[in-house]
Amino acid sequence: MARFFLPPPLPRRGYLTLDGENAAHAKALRLREGERVTVCDGQGLELACSVDGARAGRLRLRIDGAEDSAAEPRVRVSIFAAFSKSDKLEHVVMKATELGAHEFVAFPSARCVSRPDGPSLARKLERWQKIAASAAGQSGRGRIPAVSAARSCEEALRLAAGKDLPIFLYENERRASLRGALTEGEFQTVSLVAGPEGGFTPEEAGAAREAGLRICTLGPRILRCETAPLCALSAILFACGELD
Amino acid sequence: MARFFLPPPLPRRGYLTLDGENAAHAKALRLREGERVTVCDGQGLELACSVDGARAGRLRLRIDGAEDSAAEPRVRVSIFAAFSKSDKLEHVVMKATELGAHEFVAFPSARCVSRPDGPSLARKLERWQKIAASAAGQSGRGRIPAVSAARSCEEALRLAAGKDLPIFLYENERRASLRGALTEGEFQTVSLVAGPEGGFTPEEAGAAREAGLRICTLGPRILRCETAPLCALSAILFACGELD
Repeated sequence: MARFFLPPPLPRRGYLTLDGENAAHAKALRLREGERVTVCDGQGLELACSVDGARAGRLRLRIDGAEDSAAEPRVRVSIFAAFSKSDKLEHVVMKATELGAHEFVAFPSARCVSRPDGPSLARKLERWQKIAASAAGQSGRGRIPAVSAARSCEEALRLAAGKDLPIFLYENERRASLRGALTEGEFQTVSLVAGPEGGFTPEEAGAAREAGLRICTLGPRILRCETAPLCALSAILFACGELD
Repeated sequence: MARFFLPPPLPRRGYLTLDGENAAHAKALRLREGERVTVCDGQGLELACSVDGARAGRLRLRIDGAEDSAAEPRVRVSIFAAFSKSDKLEHVVMKATELGAHEFVAFPSARCVSRPDGPSLARKLERWQKIAASAAGQSGRGRIPAVSAARSCEEALRLAAGKDLPIFLYENERRASLRGALTEGEFQTVSLVAGPEGGFTPEEAGAAREAGLRICTLGPRILRCETAPLCALSAILFACGELD
């Protein structure tokens, strides 16, 4: 079923109008009167709608029902990813959105080769947010993960530490496992902090521990910086029953 | 530490010679006499070696010790992936090798748009095998996953059914979960069968069930064909303690 995102707040009954990009998308899909579509507010609310008619390039929809999205994980996983080269973070944003991530925070760390800021960072954030919206639509999610940036590693660690279960993925950790971290007590929010190509420095790992994060290994194989957070996200969603 | 793959069988003591591509790689790394390197047979055996000397573009290594790779998962997961468009299977081969997959089998299914055969398939298999070798080296694995192709979906299902825990990922399945499948009894080998862009047909899912495969959902979000097997592989490795 076609899926459109409109900015909140949305009415729960009555009528809606699709215009601009949404109307162009609807036109490309050749939606006909009476056809059913889903409209989401990008924050978990889904409206079941039917096409009521088109006029002047706009599409009028009748709202038939409203409910919370059934495709949203209950556990909210925030991905904190250090800036990396080329389009690796695009890949992480796209795949983690599909899988069910709650939000993304990009940040600079000691071994980052790429450190966008100013207009370059603003352009990247805008692009990543578009990728998240598109991936959310295609995977049938009711929520578009928010994309933002922290100004420093310290700020990222502080934000990550605010979650119920804050996890710092560190390739030099040998013992403490994700499995161990996940089996100790209840949590509704998780942060996953992942490093750049060269990994985190021992000082950054120390600061993470200091800030209250759980340092975790992902096993003896060396995962690339774009693979580690997606692997850990899949494991967490699995462990929480969100892949059932 | 630098890592080289040489074809089996390898001696467990004495000396080895690196030539051809391996010698060129060693030269690029500027390895010096006495420096330690690892040589793998690509099937799980690792030799700890030290550089003994170079002559005529070849590098002589002394074998200091031999042991089984510690980076290989005990559970052997075979990925059966339907042919998909563009370079999606390259991505799956690369990422699944990093994560720890045991082998790949590509196969044609009803909704495949791409169906390489003859010389085109041979070229693709050769390319995928190179990608697997490179990803195995970079992730520190002791084994290079074998890459092959099945001639039909039936053949793929028959091969997949031969594993201890054969799993068929089906987006129209609503109830049976991977978690359920993983908690029923012991297994050492797993097959993960994943469809093309358009998914499997109900007939293919029926044939899979008939062949003895477990039909499983990965939850309510619609995962792309290249995301689903990587998500399921991460979850299985996590559940089996291979990310610890």
